[in-house]
Amino acid sequence: MQSDITGRLLICCPDRPGIVAGVSQFLYTCGANILDASQHSTDPKEGVFFMRMEFHLENAGITSEQLEKQFQEKVAGPLHMDWHINYTFHRKRMAVMVSRYDHCLMELLWRWRSGELPVDIPLVISNHEELRELTEDFGIPFHYLPVTAATKAEKEQEAIRLIQEAKADFTVLARYMQILSPAFVGVFPGKIINIHHSFLPAFAGANPYKNAYTRGVKLIGATAHYVTNDLDEGPIIDQDVARVSHRHDVSDLVALGRDIERQVLTRAVVAHVEDRIIIHGNKTIVF
Amino acid sequence: MQSDITGRLLICCPDRPGIVAGVSQFLYTCGANILDASQHSTDPKEGVFFMRMEFHLENAGITSEQLEKQFQEKVAGPLHMDWHINYTFHRKRMAVMVSRYDHCLMELLWRWRSGELPVDIPLVISNHEELRELTEDFGIPFHYLPVTAATKAEKEQEAIRLIQEAKADFTVLARYMQILSPAFVGVFPGKIINIHHSFLPAFAGANPYKNAYTRGVKLIGATAHYVTNDLDEGPIIDQDVARVSHRHDVSDLVALGRDIERQVLTRAVVAHVEDRIIIHGNKTIVF
Amino acid sequence: MQSDITGRLLICCPDRPGIVAGVSQFLYTCGANILDASQHSTDPKEGVFFMRMEFHLENAGITSEQLEKQFQEKVAGPLHMDWHINYTFHRKRMAVMVSRYDHCLMELLWRWRSGELPVDIPLVISNHEELRELTEDFGIPFHYLPVTAATKAEKEQEAIRLIQEAKADFTVLARYMQILSPAFVGVFPGKIINIHHSFLPAFAGANPYKNAYTRGVKLIGATAHYVTNDLDEGPIIDQDVARVSHRHDVSDLVALGRDIERQVLTRAVVAHVEDRIIIHGNKTIVF
Amino acid sequence: MQSDITGRLLICCPDRPGIVAGVSQFLYTCGANILDASQHSTDPKEGVFFMRMEFHLENAGITSEQLEKQFQEKVAGPLHMDWHINYTFHRKRMAVMVSRYDHCLMELLWRWRSGELPVDIPLVISNHEELRELTEDFGIPFHYLPVTAATKAEKEQEAIRLIQEAKADFTVLARYMQILSPAFVGVFPGKIINIHHSFLPAFAGANPYKNAYTRGVKLIGATAHYVTNDLDEGPIIDQDVARVSHRHDVSDLVALGRDIERQVLTRAVVAHVEDRIIIHGNKTIVF
Repeated sequence: MQSDITGRLLICCPDRPGIVAGVSQFLYTCGANILDASQHSTDPKEGVFFMRMEFHLENAGITSEQLEKQFQEKVAGPLHMDWHINYTFHRKRMAVMVSRYDHCLMELLWRWRSGELPVDIPLVISNHEELRELTEDFGIPFHYLPVTAATKAEKEQEAIRLIQEAKADFTVLARYMQILSPAFVGVFPGKIINIHHSFLPAFAGANPYKNAYTRGVKLIGATAHYVTNDLDEGPIIDQDVARVSHRHDVSDLVALGRDIERQVLTRAVVAHVEDRIIIHGNKTIVF
Repeated sequence: MQSDITGRLLICCPDRPGIVAGVSQFLYTCGANILDASQHSTDPKEGVFFMRMEFHLENAGITSEQLEKQFQEKVAGPLHMDWHINYTFHRKRMAVMVSRYDHCLMELLWRWRSGELPVDIPLVISNHEELRELTEDFGIPFHYLPVTAATKAEKEQEAIRLIQEAKADFTVLARYMQILSPAFVGVFPGKIINIHHSFLPAFAGANPYKNAYTRGVKLIGATAHYVTNDLDEGPIIDQDVARVSHRHDVSDLVALGRDIERQVLTRAVVAHVEDRIIIHGNKTIVF
Repeated sequence: MQSDITGRLLICCPDRPGIVAGVSQFLYTCGANILDASQHSTDPKEGVFFMRMEFHLENAGITSEQLEKQFQEKVAGPLHMDWHINYTFHRKRMAVMVSRYDHCLMELLWRWRSGELPVDIPLVISNHEELRELTEDFGIPFHYLPVTAATKAEKEQEAIRLIQEAKADFTVLARYMQILSPAFVGVFPGKIINIHHSFLPAFAGANPYKNAYTRGVKLIGATAHYVTNDLDEGPIIDQDVARVSHRHDVSDLVALGRDIERQVLTRAVVAHVEDRIIIHGNKTIVF
Repeated sequence: MQSDITGRLLICCPDRPGIVAGVSQFLYTCGANILDASQHSTDPKEGVFFMRMEFHLENAGITSEQLEKQFQEKVAGPLHMDWHINYTFHRKRMAVMVSRYDHCLMELLWRWRSGELPVDIPLVISNHEELRELTEDFGIPFHYLPVTAATKAEKEQEAIRLIQEAKADFTVLARYMQILSPAFVGVFPGKIINIHHSFLPAFAGANPYKNAYTRGVKLIGATAHYVTNDLDEGPIIDQDVARVSHRHDVSDLVALGRDIERQVLTRAVVAHVEDRIIIHGNKTIVF
């Protein structure tokens, strides 16, 4: 029996009166103190209710398994809830896939080392060798899986195996420049976060900075999103932009973009790690 | 008995387990559906709990008076709550005090007319005549109360009388260039919103744009805050900034500042009108 | 002979050494003091040079006509320049076309009255009657030109006639909800500014806020651009964004968008009025 | 004789007609092509003119020494200019002083390694040992100069000696938590850049995040400035802010602040390295 548990309950269910009362009453009865709560309802026509509750179970005579079993029986079942609870005693395990650009990987490793990103990083996978030393300097295993048209399917299977063996909870594509096949994406639904180097849906696909330059936009951006089988079309987690002008050529946009990519990806990963995100259809609720 | 009530409950009380459960259970029992809920706890040492709940009371066999009486007895009393409920059927009444600058007044009136600011505006008070026509064009009574050192106390009393007779719920100082005396401020605690034309606490007092220019800052700002008897020291509601450079002289800063003032004041007034703000000591919780 | 002339010279020419020297030497010889200068060169491969010089001609024994004639002969001709000079003694005349939404029109009229927008506004044209009173309250003639599929060509010709008779230098589409035909656009190349209610190229076309909501973006934007015959594809002048979340429904996006539209359109119009923009291909240089 | 020189000329002189013409004509005669030019004049009363010109001297039969000598004789002397030219063939040498926080140092080293910060870093000086390994991992000498009240004067002299022996062109205080004495500052006027962890002039001095928390501000900031003997009062180079709320405690502000500090310090250092800054009195012109 854990003696000091902080849990984060995420709920999605049909909207009706009494949900907050039911959940909070249940947690109170279990001896849990609600530390933070957020809720959201979609428009009455759709009528879907979302909630995140962070609670603290102090010296309670109840295990997390018992709590979950009772919650399903007494609250979640009757209210037709889609739900799960993550506990902070389970430190999430994050796999990273990367190609040649180091800035996103570096930002993640740095924040991990400084304690800002409370995860374990069991492995980094890359289709290039360039970032091996950087990764290993942080004491993290680096796996080189070169991809060609001929080997792609095989290497993806190997990546799946590595990620699963490492018991990674989710995977971050930190500028991984290969399109993942449905065979890969389907194994990890809602568990792959990508950083796209444009303000989606503008400039989806390849070469967004070049296309932004050609179009003459006055802001460039970056988008963190969950990966689905529709390229660059998955649920958006976070976005940001920076101001540019005629003075910036493509290489300037790339350099400015690096800073935005780092920040947006970091914010998205932190939100995921703190269980702040509910995916609903092709959109996210980020509490 | 009202048949369709939306209420906003604001709570401040000592933190302890069971508050959310108690409140939400009570509302559920009353037939109220919780539309939105936010909560915040200060650090464990201070241990203060804040909550805002927006709820809808549909066809309930209970009046707002009954609901409040029962809430005090069953929940608020036992939990030592400082609380109140505002109802959307009571449209807040906003007094405005202004001097010669028109931009903040104009922004408020415009948003009021467009429906973005759901208030009634029973009167505008000014120590100058310049903005009479603008105000009256919107069909709002304009009161000219010129202030001199000799008449200040008397004119403030007249302003108090006008505001009270108009049954104004709160007063906005939309660039009112007189310092209000404790005799005035004391009558309306937590009910006067001021827009200060700097990023407080930088450049408190007079001439902030000139002082910002002299100091050579690279950002200028504006601050909306509740008025207390400590000049420019009251609880801050909202702030924002704009980038400036050596190219901007004082008059440019004034012009740029107008836009920030308009936006920050609007956001603060909307938050106040939607009962999103709890004042705690000299700080605000803005849900 | 004008005794006090401020001019703004805009230049586009093949890049080569000596351009700044040649132009500044010429202006100096004419008795002109350079108040501000900006320049830009495209990449060496394209090799195009752009410059804006603001100068002051004080008590000079030379008229603007003489200055321009000599400039063409001595500098612009030999250097193959595309150039023109605008003078501040010629206050630009701005036509406005609008439909039912008032916020962009209101912002322009307000800044015009406050002196922030140094233009004359000889007329407002609308395909609806709604904004007549607002416009006429500012003392500006309002022309109602209702458009149907059958009358569109005819009404556009009437609009052209009205704009030309009013000697308008440029036209602002302040949320004018009709697509202008090539017959109209071709008469005013580089002289029509539109505000599009999205962060182009995302969500071009109709209903951008609805599409932004559906896609679940975390930022919405607005774009001011010159109108060409490619819908929403003309040279971008300015853009900006605001942060949104799952809490904002389509009507919230529309409301937030109004503020961005107002700001972006204002900045674009001011840049145009101050002769800060050079159109080059489908892009702008904004000095 | 260098065969391919890019120079950056910075000028400050009394404003009068003919400066741009004189300088650009001189450069043209020397065979220099002007790549970029910016200018600024203070208000007519003060009448000071500032200019930055970036030029390229291609295969010219003139050395930089000859060019400077002639410039002084023909242009700068007659026009009473305060000026200097930096050349890109002289890569600036940057000393860094740091205490225990690693984020600003890390950002500088990272951008240096990625090539975004075109400097040499001959040494890092610290009053603590913590960041030795981080620094030496980048191959940069680390000097530990512990400071006590008794040893401060002596250690400062040693730091001066190290910086001078390393031929550092400027010094960055990347969260160096000691106040430098006039004896130190006086040796390097306009050559020390500090990052202060607040939006100056708000929260000057120690513990700005704690003071920001206590005051309840809704934005926190960071300020990069040149160091003078007036603590936190030197000429500001750049500033930025981030939005905070009641949810952020002091440690959250510190974490958020780290990101702003990194960005603001980087921008300031890049501007300094690219010779974009002129210090004028207690303000900066940043071209």
